[in-house]
Amino acid sequence: MPALTLEEVARKLGGEAVGPKELVIEGVSSYETAGGSDLAFVDSPRLLPAAERSRAAALIVPREVASAAKPIIRADNPRLAFAQALELFSPRRRPTPGVHPTAVVGADVQLGGQVYVGPQVVIGDRARVGRAAELHALTFVGDEVEIGEDTVIYPRVSVYHGVRIGKRCVIHSGCVIGGDGFGFVRGAHGEHVKVPQVGTVIIEDDVEIGANCAIDRATTDATVIGRGTKMDNLVQVGHNVKIGRNCIIVAQVGLSGSVEIGDGVVLAGQAGIADHITIGPGAAVCAQAGVTGDVQAGMIVSGYPARPHKEQLKTEAAVRRLPEALAELRRLRRRVQELEERLGLGQDEAS
Amino acid sequence: MPALTLEEVARKLGGEAVGPKELVIEGVSSYETAGGSDLAFVDSPRLLPAAERSRAAALIVPREVASAAKPIIRADNPRLAFAQALELFSPRRRPTPGVHPTAVVGADVQLGGQVYVGPQVVIGDRARVGRAAELHALTFVGDEVEIGEDTVIYPRVSVYHGVRIGKRCVIHSGCVIGGDGFGFVRGAHGEHVKVPQVGTVIIEDDVEIGANCAIDRATTDATVIGRGTKMDNLVQVGHNVKIGRNCIIVAQVGLSGSVEIGDGVVLAGQAGIADHITIGPGAAVCAQAGVTGDVQAGMIVSGYPARPHKEQLKTEAAVRRLPEALAELRRLRRRVQELEERLGLGQDEAS
Amino acid sequence: MPALTLEEVARKLGGEAVGPKELVIEGVSSYETAGGSDLAFVDSPRLLPAAERSRAAALIVPREVASAAKPIIRADNPRLAFAQALELFSPRRRPTPGVHPTAVVGADVQLGGQVYVGPQVVIGDRARVGRAAELHALTFVGDEVEIGEDTVIYPRVSVYHGVRIGKRCVIHSGCVIGGDGFGFVRGAHGEHVKVPQVGTVIIEDDVEIGANCAIDRATTDATVIGRGTKMDNLVQVGHNVKIGRNCIIVAQVGLSGSVEIGDGVVLAGQAGIADHITIGPGAAVCAQAGVTGDVQAGMIVSGYPARPHKEQLKTEAAVRRLPEALAELRRLRRRVQELEERLGLGQDEAS
Repeated sequence: MPALTLEEVARKLGGEAVGPKELVIEGVSSYETAGGSDLAFVDSPRLLPAAERSRAAALIVPREVASAAKPIIRADNPRLAFAQALELFSPRRRPTPGVHPTAVVGADVQLGGQVYVGPQVVIGDRARVGRAAELHALTFVGDEVEIGEDTVIYPRVSVYHGVRIGKRCVIHSGCVIGGDGFGFVRGAHGEHVKVPQVGTVIIEDDVEIGANCAIDRATTDATVIGRGTKMDNLVQVGHNVKIGRNCIIVAQVGLSGSVEIGDGVVLAGQAGIADHITIGPGAAVCAQAGVTGDVQAGMIVSGYPARPHKEQLKTEAAVRRLPEALAELRRLRRRVQELEERLGLGQDEAS
Repeated sequence: MPALTLEEVARKLGGEAVGPKELVIEGVSSYETAGGSDLAFVDSPRLLPAAERSRAAALIVPREVASAAKPIIRADNPRLAFAQALELFSPRRRPTPGVHPTAVVGADVQLGGQVYVGPQVVIGDRARVGRAAELHALTFVGDEVEIGEDTVIYPRVSVYHGVRIGKRCVIHSGCVIGGDGFGFVRGAHGEHVKVPQVGTVIIEDDVEIGANCAIDRATTDATVIGRGTKMDNLVQVGHNVKIGRNCIIVAQVGLSGSVEIGDGVVLAGQAGIADHITIGPGAAVCAQAGVTGDVQAGMIVSGYPARPHKEQLKTEAAVRRLPEALAELRRLRRRVQELEERLGLGQDEAS
Repeated sequence: MPALTLEEVARKLGGEAVGPKELVIEGVSSYETAGGSDLAFVDSPRLLPAAERSRAAALIVPREVASAAKPIIRADNPRLAFAQALELFSPRRRPTPGVHPTAVVGADVQLGGQVYVGPQVVIGDRARVGRAAELHALTFVGDEVEIGEDTVIYPRVSVYHGVRIGKRCVIHSGCVIGGDGFGFVRGAHGEHVKVPQVGTVIIEDDVEIGANCAIDRATTDATVIGRGTKMDNLVQVGHNVKIGRNCIIVAQVGLSGSVEIGDGVVLAGQAGIADHITIGPGAAVCAQAGVTGDVQAGMIVSGYPARPHKEQLKTEAAVRRLPEALAELRRLRRRVQELEERLGLGQDEAS
């Protein structure tokens, strides 16, 4: 780890140092776990008192904070500055470029300059790997796959034949990209006949995909993950799905076949989307929701079947009052019966 | 890709060509994405107008359609014919048989004729692999495993010792077959003592298993996946589960230990089945349902806890009306109170 | 498999044999599937009649059972004795220690005595592997990883750099331990900027982790899995999660970032826990529940959003009666309207 002065760190983060400019910073941490030479951050003045009591040497704070009980770096976006500080003090380890002697590289493969191909990697024929891309140990890359420059594929990933992955992507361990879509048709004797999945997967630039995800190839055409979209672990993406740009897809989400997701959509953990559903740009689906109908742009939905989140909250509150309401209903019925009896009207018709 | 005439394609699909029989077909696609020499399909006359406006060169249509604005192939089951056309124009790539020099093959392993063993594959002792089976790169096959003829195991699969896989199966990348069932018993000091899982897994013929599934071995005896069953990605199958024939199990379904699933059952995405539950033949479980009791043959269930789907729909509709019903209940109470006051009866006993 | 007499087995299990002490036991099974020389078990006298009708040669029974229609072994904890019997008759296969010639072992790696490193394994620089640990085929272990003695890592596991795994752990195939946490911050142009994940994962002693789980490294500091905790397949553990000791985490559970789980907690299948939630010691979360608020020690919660299980059951029962209650509400309204009309009061104000 490097050691930098408060002033140097502030300059690199585009912030302003307030305090002893020669203070030496040796690491970055959350304030809860910071050591005595660490830089921490708060993204709200509300958290400042707790952070001031921490062991941190200095704090990144919102620009609106003018001074504090500790040395500070004032930043327009403290969380972004913190991310940059982490990068500064713990830059990503890059392996030494080259092809490990145990890797098996097919025929007519094109490897760009500075490419890393780790131990036991298997690359099929006619694959193309862009400059400075990294294919880590035990990864499988099929025939005719294209991988863009600066993309990192961590150990033990499977990229089936013909898949195209853009630039600066990050694919975590255990992912399977381009496996067959789940398509079967009933045969004459009730058996399930496989529909060949002859399409592919296209992953655009700057996409990150978490561990153990499964992204199926299209029946024909392509399953597409749009530029800048970030996906957590154990996500399922069915065949012919189209995901827009800059989406956030949290762990264990399931997207059925032919789902279309607009730009900037957020899908929270364990949500499921039924097949052929369209989710408009900027919409959000809450955790564990089950979406069975189209969702309009900008809408927030939750529950099963998913509905506008505000309605769903109102319904959930009503459901919690339901046992009491049923008791009230019984009491009312008795009271109405009494009134009827008093007036000599007919008896309670419900048993 | 081959190029065939409309007449030739129709003959191979068992359909009837209507239109210029010498028309050259060069590929197969959905009509939405078809190019000008592609064959597409519609499985309902309702979709015909849209398909007629597409770029497709010709259409597979239901037998009842006698003619159309494009050349057609009339078929009894257009979807099945489409699957066959995909197979015709994009036959599955088969690797050249043989054992890659980087594969590690144990002692007393029997490999049938035309078997493919890819790079970096590891096969344990006494395993048996049937004729023309394919074990793709980086796959692990344990001791005494049996794999039937024509089965395809894609890259990076784990088959633990003693597992038996039938003929013509397809196992996608990332699957783990035969890992230990989740069995523990409380020890004297509150710790969890492992129950050794000494059973196995039996996968019958013609089964397909999607990417990154986990199928646990039985405690004793065997976990069984019945003939012709098709499983999507990221499915969990607990120990001692018995799955019948020709079932469809969609992505991210979870089957707890000792579940029994009859023939022809459909389990939709993210459904979960509690341990020791029996699901009768031909039943269906809707997406995200949580099954906590046995399901009778042919029944459709949904919700949590899962109930007959029609009842569940009725309840969901009622729940959506609940906030208004609670307001109505309050209004009624006021009206009853007024009546009581008018008649000089006791006050509202509920506050 | 060994063959032992009833007397010998009883002695090894700490139980008491009743019946022909020289009876030869050749295997262990559930009574449903037992063969004629197998030992089975019942953990309740209620199951004894069924077990007595089985083919089993002998039964492990609760101490309170004095005699039965078959030879028995009386044990204080029959389930525990059964686990021990399974271990006795089917001891875990241990590979022959040594480093396979196809393994790639980095610089300055320390391997303890009796370590097994299987075919195609890749170990990074400066990793340390404790005595008698097993790293099975095709596993990846990153730089500076520490693995404790007697730990078993099954084939095809990924352990990213710097992760620490304790003694006597079992990690099943397909797990990814130490992948990046899912942390992004909005950049100036709406893009998601990665927050470097520079923390690690610490797995304490005696932990078991099922197939295809994903356990993310912390942003800073460490994600921790406490001693003796057992995890089923396909579980998601987000960054900075802290899991206590002796927890049971069933398949497909999802833990969001910074969740804290106390000792002895049980999380049932497909449950999801929102970020920064604390679950107290001894609490239990039912299957498919969605936990959005803290759970107190010892509490059982279910549903979405999760609530005390008893309340949730009451609410579910009320919801099932809701369609009938709405009908009753309509009837009551008509009756009140009639009463009002009879008394010359105002009309029904709700349409």
